[in-house]
Amino acid sequence: MISSDAARKIIAAGEARAQAIGVPVNIAVLDSGTHLKAFSRMDGALIGSIDIALGKARTAALFTMPTEVIGEFCKPGGTSPGLEQTNGGLVVFAGGLPVIDADGAMIGAVGVSGGAVDQDLDIATAAAAALTH
Amino acid sequence: MISSDAARKIIAAGEARAQAIGVPVNIAVLDSGTHLKAFSRMDGALIGSIDIALGKARTAALFTMPTEVIGEFCKPGGTSPGLEQTNGGLVVFAGGLPVIDADGAMIGAVGVSGGAVDQDLDIATAAAAALTH
Amino acid sequence: MISSDAARKIIAAGEARAQAIGVPVNIAVLDSGTHLKAFSRMDGALIGSIDIALGKARTAALFTMPTEVIGEFCKPGGTSPGLEQTNGGLVVFAGGLPVIDADGAMIGAVGVSGGAVDQDLDIATAAAAALTH
Amino acid sequence: MISSDAARKIIAAGEARAQAIGVPVNIAVLDSGTHLKAFSRMDGALIGSIDIALGKARTAALFTMPTEVIGEFCKPGGTSPGLEQTNGGLVVFAGGLPVIDADGAMIGAVGVSGGAVDQDLDIATAAAAALTH
Repeated sequence: MISSDAARKIIAAGEARAQAIGVPVNIAVLDSGTHLKAFSRMDGALIGSIDIALGKARTAALFTMPTEVIGEFCKPGGTSPGLEQTNGGLVVFAGGLPVIDADGAMIGAVGVSGGAVDQDLDIATAAAAALTH
Repeated sequence: MISSDAARKIIAAGEARAQAIGVPVNIAVLDSGTHLKAFSRMDGALIGSIDIALGKARTAALFTMPTEVIGEFCKPGGTSPGLEQTNGGLVVFAGGLPVIDADGAMIGAVGVSGGAVDQDLDIATAAAAALTH
Repeated sequence: MISSDAARKIIAAGEARAQAIGVPVNIAVLDSGTHLKAFSRMDGALIGSIDIALGKARTAALFTMPTEVIGEFCKPGGTSPGLEQTNGGLVVFAGGLPVIDADGAMIGAVGVSGGAVDQDLDIATAAAAALTH
Repeated sequence: MISSDAARKIIAAGEARAQAIGVPVNIAVLDSGTHLKAFSRMDGALIGSIDIALGKARTAALFTMPTEVIGEFCKPGGTSPGLEQTNGGLVVFAGGLPVIDADGAMIGAVGVSGGAVDQDLDIATAAAAALTH
């Protein structure tokens, strides 16, 4: 079970990285049951990215995998065409990651949106690492 | 436009009050256009209250009024039967309040859910007052 | 078929009345097939009333009746309990009116929301009368 | 905050351009929070384009970008496959533009639909320029 304290550390680590690279983003933290635990929209972050940050975190939590790995399954020629339409719609590009605690247990997921896809992934990686670094 | 800093103060003030009265709650902060700015679920808060906290904040932002005032309009014998069915569904019991800044401008709304209705209102009142006290 | 010119006159007449009584409102004009023809949100009008103005106009167009007359049918003891849940949800309090042209033909409907229910009806009445006065 | 006066100028500029090129269209103007401010369907414009004009304006407001730029992100081989499924569904072809005021601030968005895509963009460009020309 992800704690409020852990969620705050995840968002703070993500926002610190976002500020370092100069990209305002939305950051969503869900528990392992996909329920919202904490959220922050940085000043200047796109409002269209709120839903995407939430969707990336939900997708990562549902499959315990980075969102872009799930995206590989539903690419043309992939193993699972239409996978992205299941579960009410997934977000299958980079920026959603499972959150693993210091004991190696999956306790939730983080989703980042607002920058270019590689920037979102960079920030999500920093956020997800907050509990193990 | 509500800032991240303001949103954090609103949530901190609400959580401080919630801890003082011993009730874990969900707190949602939206901007004046009803878009999510920040959210926090305290440890132990009901997951069924996440959607209610979001809905209370959205309802208060849409009408620039406390949610229970909107509830009066749609009570039996009220002026606007079925009002709660508009806008994709409103939450019309206490716990959602507009957020007014020190200059008197409506800059967003806060929604609280997880306790009894009077506790939610108590906590929302403390949260909404964070910017003017 | 309601023309753009007629829709503009309806909105202008409604806004003139709204300014005269000091209530900023949303005004929606639909054609007789319930499709949006024109819309205006006056400065300061509630954003939660956008959906209600649209809903009132749609309800009036669907039944060729004032919305509050339809509301009578679904009141406790009325002839048609649950009528307000049909057609994807109706708005059954005052402020939606059919628009009748100078020849007596129903060419569309107008919906007003933002004030008290009697104010909305007052403004809708002025708006709907624009083509016959 | 976009004013009624600004919205009227945007629609008038769009309709003047639409008449000049002989294409009846729907024009939607939203505020920066994606809420409807004003709408006009010209006589003869397709009713199937009402929803598209609204969707283009919403998409441009959500991402502060022309809709066709967002369309690039979700093309085959683009960075964000499935982006168009987020936010309840986006409209990612040309005809939706942010509205920038004379001070350079994004105050809303305009969406145009009813003609060919390049005509819609032509008209939207004229509409969005109304406040700075």
